[in-house]
Amino acid sequence: MRAVQVIGYHQDLEMREVDVPEVSGPFDVIVRIGGAGVCRTDLHILEGQWAEKTGVALPYTIGHENAGWVHAVGSAVTNVREGDKVIVHPHITCGLCRACRTGDDVHCENSQFPGVDTNGGYAEYLRTSARSVVPIDDDLEPADVAALADAGLTAYHAAAKAARRLTPRDTCVVIGAGGLGHIGIQVMKALSPAQLVVVDRNPEALKLALDLGADHGVVAAGSQVEEVLEITRGTGAEVVLDFVGEGGSTSEGIAMTRQAGDYHVVGYGENVDVPTIDLISAEKNVIGNLVGSYNDLCDLMALAARGAVTLHTQKYALDDFQTAISDLDAGRVRGRAILTP
Amino acid sequence: MRAVQVIGYHQDLEMREVDVPEVSGPFDVIVRIGGAGVCRTDLHILEGQWAEKTGVALPYTIGHENAGWVHAVGSAVTNVREGDKVIVHPHITCGLCRACRTGDDVHCENSQFPGVDTNGGYAEYLRTSARSVVPIDDDLEPADVAALADAGLTAYHAAAKAARRLTPRDTCVVIGAGGLGHIGIQVMKALSPAQLVVVDRNPEALKLALDLGADHGVVAAGSQVEEVLEITRGTGAEVVLDFVGEGGSTSEGIAMTRQAGDYHVVGYGENVDVPTIDLISAEKNVIGNLVGSYNDLCDLMALAARGAVTLHTQKYALDDFQTAISDLDAGRVRGRAILTP
Amino acid sequence: MRAVQVIGYHQDLEMREVDVPEVSGPFDVIVRIGGAGVCRTDLHILEGQWAEKTGVALPYTIGHENAGWVHAVGSAVTNVREGDKVIVHPHITCGLCRACRTGDDVHCENSQFPGVDTNGGYAEYLRTSARSVVPIDDDLEPADVAALADAGLTAYHAAAKAARRLTPRDTCVVIGAGGLGHIGIQVMKALSPAQLVVVDRNPEALKLALDLGADHGVVAAGSQVEEVLEITRGTGAEVVLDFVGEGGSTSEGIAMTRQAGDYHVVGYGENVDVPTIDLISAEKNVIGNLVGSYNDLCDLMALAARGAVTLHTQKYALDDFQTAISDLDAGRVRGRAILTP
Amino acid sequence: MRAVQVIGYHQDLEMREVDVPEVSGPFDVIVRIGGAGVCRTDLHILEGQWAEKTGVALPYTIGHENAGWVHAVGSAVTNVREGDKVIVHPHITCGLCRACRTGDDVHCENSQFPGVDTNGGYAEYLRTSARSVVPIDDDLEPADVAALADAGLTAYHAAAKAARRLTPRDTCVVIGAGGLGHIGIQVMKALSPAQLVVVDRNPEALKLALDLGADHGVVAAGSQVEEVLEITRGTGAEVVLDFVGEGGSTSEGIAMTRQAGDYHVVGYGENVDVPTIDLISAEKNVIGNLVGSYNDLCDLMALAARGAVTLHTQKYALDDFQTAISDLDAGRVRGRAILTP
Repeated sequence: MRAVQVIGYHQDLEMREVDVPEVSGPFDVIVRIGGAGVCRTDLHILEGQWAEKTGVALPYTIGHENAGWVHAVGSAVTNVREGDKVIVHPHITCGLCRACRTGDDVHCENSQFPGVDTNGGYAEYLRTSARSVVPIDDDLEPADVAALADAGLTAYHAAAKAARRLTPRDTCVVIGAGGLGHIGIQVMKALSPAQLVVVDRNPEALKLALDLGADHGVVAAGSQVEEVLEITRGTGAEVVLDFVGEGGSTSEGIAMTRQAGDYHVVGYGENVDVPTIDLISAEKNVIGNLVGSYNDLCDLMALAARGAVTLHTQKYALDDFQTAISDLDAGRVRGRAILTP
Repeated sequence: MRAVQVIGYHQDLEMREVDVPEVSGPFDVIVRIGGAGVCRTDLHILEGQWAEKTGVALPYTIGHENAGWVHAVGSAVTNVREGDKVIVHPHITCGLCRACRTGDDVHCENSQFPGVDTNGGYAEYLRTSARSVVPIDDDLEPADVAALADAGLTAYHAAAKAARRLTPRDTCVVIGAGGLGHIGIQVMKALSPAQLVVVDRNPEALKLALDLGADHGVVAAGSQVEEVLEITRGTGAEVVLDFVGEGGSTSEGIAMTRQAGDYHVVGYGENVDVPTIDLISAEKNVIGNLVGSYNDLCDLMALAARGAVTLHTQKYALDDFQTAISDLDAGRVRGRAILTP
Repeated sequence: MRAVQVIGYHQDLEMREVDVPEVSGPFDVIVRIGGAGVCRTDLHILEGQWAEKTGVALPYTIGHENAGWVHAVGSAVTNVREGDKVIVHPHITCGLCRACRTGDDVHCENSQFPGVDTNGGYAEYLRTSARSVVPIDDDLEPADVAALADAGLTAYHAAAKAARRLTPRDTCVVIGAGGLGHIGIQVMKALSPAQLVVVDRNPEALKLALDLGADHGVVAAGSQVEEVLEITRGTGAEVVLDFVGEGGSTSEGIAMTRQAGDYHVVGYGENVDVPTIDLISAEKNVIGNLVGSYNDLCDLMALAARGAVTLHTQKYALDDFQTAISDLDAGRVRGRAILTP
Repeated sequence: MRAVQVIGYHQDLEMREVDVPEVSGPFDVIVRIGGAGVCRTDLHILEGQWAEKTGVALPYTIGHENAGWVHAVGSAVTNVREGDKVIVHPHITCGLCRACRTGDDVHCENSQFPGVDTNGGYAEYLRTSARSVVPIDDDLEPADVAALADAGLTAYHAAAKAARRLTPRDTCVVIGAGGLGHIGIQVMKALSPAQLVVVDRNPEALKLALDLGADHGVVAAGSQVEEVLEITRGTGAEVVLDFVGEGGSTSEGIAMTRQAGDYHVVGYGENVDVPTIDLISAEKNVIGNLVGSYNDLCDLMALAARGAVTLHTQKYALDDFQTAISDLDAGRVRGRAILTP
């Protein structure tokens, strides 16, 4: 089959002919790829940023946002069968460690990450596990939802975790209305009755946010903290979801957070650097967020099935992978780039 | 009556003769002081550290850790009556703002802090509110529990909040076995089934911690992070309670925290300075902690009544206030210094 | 002023001329009535069903669903002032007992219930407490929201409590789409991402439920349990909210509840009569629900302010109270009957 | 190997020579039995009470409370290896259904129950799954902990679930200080700071309960409800754990429950029969409880390892199974009867 592979760092990906993956373990599932998301992390992989951390042997197939159809299953697989339309959770998890046993599989002690530390989905077929495939609704198409497998799932996880404490009198601030924030806004509207304020540098992104249901848009042009305080009558917001995590957004985000409120880190880059006296006197919390669990992905697919979460995609044939990568790198992709076979 | 007052910053406290406070509002409660804790914050007040923040007019009576007997009550007071033995919550709260209405009175939007921004308890009588007095068990004496009103309450609040997620397989690390940590350890033993590891520079403090029920003592002599990781089989602890908050304890505390775990800031001084990538990839939380609520103080008094939380005290006559202050400043107080009338 | 009073059981209400209530305690608030809901409980009061339970002395003014404008306030009132537009929580609570201190004021140990055990709101003025008045949005009118003060608040409380556990993959069944269920459906849509199934005997009520956002309507014509099981693929619903509580709805509701699910009792009449073996083997919960707290009422008013919860009302002049009562008794009221001054 | 089998209902068990079970699936684990608990459910099985419900084909090996050593493992087993000392969770679960994926494996949609619907542990060897074995501490012996696998696990689950809401000011009532209640008391002492009141007909059982840390013992001689109300100053207890579930304990238990409190059903037999008006006006909850999850069993083993939960056992050789059964039936077993190979 065709597979787009990393053959060296700081050099272009290459299309290669490789063997179709086969079932080798009892829980293996082979997925025929219907769509593979092209993610900024893929660019970072090529830059070598993940080389040491994963120690993955080259060449290998890249691509960690995948959806498609079940092609073959191992002997112990009971939850899907050949032909099922599925989205693929980005991790392969063991199912036996303490984290897996509590449903918190993203903290699995023995996980694999296809596309990052083993073969991924820029290809015709992918090997994953029964524990990683989520059947999707008849009305959804793999190429349309593939990017929800990682980017969307991260946004869902943070928004769902944050939403638990929100009531109709509360305010939630979303910093960053780009790829993840865009999903986070839709999830927050579906899960929470709170007032929703979106902060972004780009007025176009804010316009989209308001179309998606945000109650206020604040241009991040220097006085965004003051504006959020004003909207919240001086108190700040009960929840701040920061999808940026750099360029000063962390200190601004904490400043926008109300006493006893939660500042959620999702985007990353800079340091959180805050005096302990500030955390204590206002009793604020800084909450970390990783990608979502298998359960989160099931929940997100339920929202997608009813049209509560949608994603703009720009599709490329698998053979045009380099165009997709270049477009992403050059900022020419609106929404998410998807490779289709 | 006699009252020890701040008459100027950077100068000694003075004993003065002032009027006994009287009931003026419907919820006022006048407490005859049985014990007033001498706290490090009192030293900071004299150094002027709180002058600007509070804008309190001098002279005023210092002392924010108080217990005694109800002397007089306002017309609307129904929860205590003359003669009741009470401990005094450090804040006077409004009862009507959103925070008060949800039981989260420490975030009251209209609160007073006797001993800090209005007259306190280094005196024969104190004016507080019906909302701030907690009747105590017949077997408890005001002078014995006064220091639980603020120092103990802060430790209780953090430990109780942290304990909610702890199970028998979890580990809780307490950093700092001094005044607050000492209470935190006792509270954690009463409220949680987790393994308890205590970290302190002082081997004597660790010995006391083990006597109070800690499972492991770790001397903070440079390899404390490694030792905690070893005790937890490499994973770190589900909860870390940091009663120090300076000298590097924040980065060490976060390093001791397990994936998806909670690092609680209680002591303060330095900055929490942590890369967002670390918070995200391990999904750790940094949790702020203020003093406890009225409900927390009631809970703490229930533990004290059955002997589950005790405190070593060193008593001084009110007239010997200067000796108490000097002893505290010089590190000559074992446990907490208490002024008694 | 004019006031409609209970002068004896099993006889008609009478309009009388009485003194305008005055401020007597520091937290008293006098409200000029803008709307008073006419509730089925009022009929039960006249039938004497509450006589023994409350021991209220006759005559007294009936009416427990009230909204209007602040007319006068006691000396200690800081949260409202003369002229404020308010809705009135049905209970007057003490603010000092343990329940009140945790925000759970409906379980106050020293509460009053105007209109039931003391003078209520079928009148020009009502005396209540600062703790019972919730300022409402400029765009809301007292006569339009008065019925949310008790009927709506009960529905809000149950729906908000039930919604906490619901995810996008869950199903919530609402039994009874009448006065309370109607509000419950709107609240559930605002607070939860669950699939919503409504069961009622009346196809007209189901049509309204679907207009309000319900996903499925099931006519209670004998096979309603089977239909709910079919909609939920045989498992039953994670949450069932029973606004009926009689005529067999309790056993049907429990049968519609999924393993480990919650069956909420809101409406009442019959007994819950269920074998312990059924509760245990399926680990189901039967959850009681009282009227909502002050905080619940604030939250409900936030939803009402943005139009997320609306209520059909039929207005009557205060002088026409007997017509309103008779219409209610005869089933001629669509939505809720409201007396206006 | 030797195995004690059900060969017909209403007739004695028989010792038979059968094949040692072998690994057939990738997650299979063969356990060499070190101890098998003899449970009242075994008597009910022989009476045919489970015949229709399970449809199990006779003959099969009985015994659902098992512990021992790992003898062999399937190809995909990574959490235990040959020789490990383990206790066996009573269910074999699929790991793939929604319940399993959230850690709530007792509600697995595809589970087996060895000893009840397939071969159990009155034998030399048992086949179970990797998902059902919990490694135990070096200091614990299989024959000593076997009875914790089901009876103990049920008590742990209910007590741990109930304990979450308990604070130092709360009261927990345990009804029934027999086999399960005995464990429940120990778990409650380890997990909760609440006052503990134990109710039992047997003064000897109450004496043991007090030795285990209960604060009050109440003889169930007719005035037990009044006594509990008196101990709780008239309010009732925040939590009632009913390990009896018959002979009137359900209505008594609900009467002992405070407003907004939880009545937990664990023991079973009679119906819960309560007016909806009582559930509503006091906002009480009736909470069902099944056996604990795999995670609960891990937690319970952590408590057992440190000696916080112990169980009196009476051991019998496997060949003496009939004596054990007869002793249990005749009420001659103190604690739990255990068969050892």
